[in-house]
Amino acid sequence: MVPVHQWIKIKAPATVANMVCGFDILGFAVNNPYDEMEMRLVNLTPGQAPITIINIDDYQLPTEPEKNVAGAALIALIEEYTANSLIEKSLSAASDSAAKNDLIDFSVIGFEVKINKLIKPGSGVGSSAASSAGAVVGANYLLGNPFSKDDLVRFAMNGEKVASGVKHADNIAPCIYGGVTLVRQIYPLEIITLPSPDLYATIVHPQIEVRTADARSILKQNVQLKDAIKQWGNIAGLVAGLMKGDYDLIGRSLEDVIIEPVRSILIPGFDDLKKACKLVGALGGGISGSGPSIFFLSKEKETALAVEQEMINLYTGLGLAHHTYVTTIHQTGVEITE
Amino acid sequence: MVPVHQWIKIKAPATVANMVCGFDILGFAVNNPYDEMEMRLVNLTPGQAPITIINIDDYQLPTEPEKNVAGAALIALIEEYTANSLIEKSLSAASDSAAKNDLIDFSVIGFEVKINKLIKPGSGVGSSAASSAGAVVGANYLLGNPFSKDDLVRFAMNGEKVASGVKHADNIAPCIYGGVTLVRQIYPLEIITLPSPDLYATIVHPQIEVRTADARSILKQNVQLKDAIKQWGNIAGLVAGLMKGDYDLIGRSLEDVIIEPVRSILIPGFDDLKKACKLVGALGGGISGSGPSIFFLSKEKETALAVEQEMINLYTGLGLAHHTYVTTIHQTGVEITE
Repeated sequence: MVPVHQWIKIKAPATVANMVCGFDILGFAVNNPYDEMEMRLVNLTPGQAPITIINIDDYQLPTEPEKNVAGAALIALIEEYTANSLIEKSLSAASDSAAKNDLIDFSVIGFEVKINKLIKPGSGVGSSAASSAGAVVGANYLLGNPFSKDDLVRFAMNGEKVASGVKHADNIAPCIYGGVTLVRQIYPLEIITLPSPDLYATIVHPQIEVRTADARSILKQNVQLKDAIKQWGNIAGLVAGLMKGDYDLIGRSLEDVIIEPVRSILIPGFDDLKKACKLVGALGGGISGSGPSIFFLSKEKETALAVEQEMINLYTGLGLAHHTYVTTIHQTGVEITE
Repeated sequence: MVPVHQWIKIKAPATVANMVCGFDILGFAVNNPYDEMEMRLVNLTPGQAPITIINIDDYQLPTEPEKNVAGAALIALIEEYTANSLIEKSLSAASDSAAKNDLIDFSVIGFEVKINKLIKPGSGVGSSAASSAGAVVGANYLLGNPFSKDDLVRFAMNGEKVASGVKHADNIAPCIYGGVTLVRQIYPLEIITLPSPDLYATIVHPQIEVRTADARSILKQNVQLKDAIKQWGNIAGLVAGLMKGDYDLIGRSLEDVIIEPVRSILIPGFDDLKKACKLVGALGGGISGSGPSIFFLSKEKETALAVEQEMINLYTGLGLAHHTYVTTIHQTGVEITE
């Protein structure tokens, strides 16, 4: 356990969910952008809540723990910690051990969390997931790592529920595990890490608003079986391509016949950008999460930079403010840096 | 090129298509059962067709090449060979080389094919695929192997069209390539071989008729998006499990929420058998192709034998004639044995 009042620093990576054909199941973490956070355990004054959120950015996100994604994730963690503590306390009382001294009582000790969001909220690269995941990984570290990564994903999903109304793990999983992850199922949670070859990701965030809830509500609830078969052929191809390190197969499999045709309508310039990025050599790409960010994967850095130039050209031409990132896959997940 | 009149012997393995969650894309070959075939090149008498089919089993399958699955596959092969030969002849005439002497003229030379079907037609373990694939692999060998495996799959798919009305490759691909195969897409054809750990397959063929065309027509043309997501999570999990050699992941991923609930109604005892096989330790399994055969995969031979006993018990109890096989994954695809 880290002593009370000692700050730790946390780096929580942005993530790209869906990975084109893997709607709701695939995702990967990137080295840039990332959120910076600081956390510590503090002694509470009588009546003080066990979670204090301090935003040190300009996004004016809510600081009430229940309404804040990091707060909601920490509430879930504290609940389970306390429930387990009670069990352990009763066990240790029975066996007369001293283990109970190591347990934290969240009626007298709490978390203080400073959040510096460098991943713009609503950009579609896992901004909410970074805060939720960063908070629970940090909390776990402060408590002496009593929880597994799967536990932490479960807690952090409560943050996603605050952000989008749905407890999904396709950003949380890569944020906590790093690399490319497969969420085979949510209940019970099962996350599989997929090895991948070196890949460059170029991301553009056109500064328009696409609310996750909207992007979800426009999806059709039924799909044609023939399209579903195409999609799962691509998903199988993408998993095989990643695991074999077969760049061409990865490229051919990065095709989405179900979600992209519907959602891309919300993103100005999408079709033109896709054509342009493939022309300069990108393996493939599409909408990041529910958008509006768009990502393309490349084998070589030069290609990734050429893709960035296409993104800049297109959105400059459309007169839309935008940010671009040329980055690589982040392999470790949320890091405690200090 | 093998001299005219010299017989070759061919062994064409049975195959299990779909592999539970991978409808229309996944399949694997097994070491037992298999078809035996013999083929040779013969000089034709004037007016004789270039394909002669001789059935040496009791199934009384059609021998007219257009109506026979092996015949239809060979027709496609001869067509492409002849088209390519004409191109090569004109090229060699231009360059004055002797290459044209190696080319066969199918107006004077033809194939004679003896088929001994040991894989019962209509059993759902790729009986038609074995004949089509065996014929084109044999023909390719007789001609000096001018065609690639992908070419041979394309030709053999014409046999599947004769058998079921649909040019599908999910049995043909594993029959020709061996092992576990992924058909990422049909047009243009793309087959990916997937490494897999040692697996035992137990297969039961209850002697009822399920016509492939019927099994296809009862499928719903639309599926719920949430089911499709479950299915592609399982497909991704299965591919990852096979490539990682993770038996537990393979087992958890062998679940089909889309096709099996509809098709299993056609197979008496399916649900009871599934429960019984899992209880004795099978990793998982389901309908082989469009049925009626059912297969289960096991890590250990003892489990595979216990699964066989459950199959025998169930169908004996139901008073249904049946055959069982305990076998392993066939790794090489159609073999020329002599």
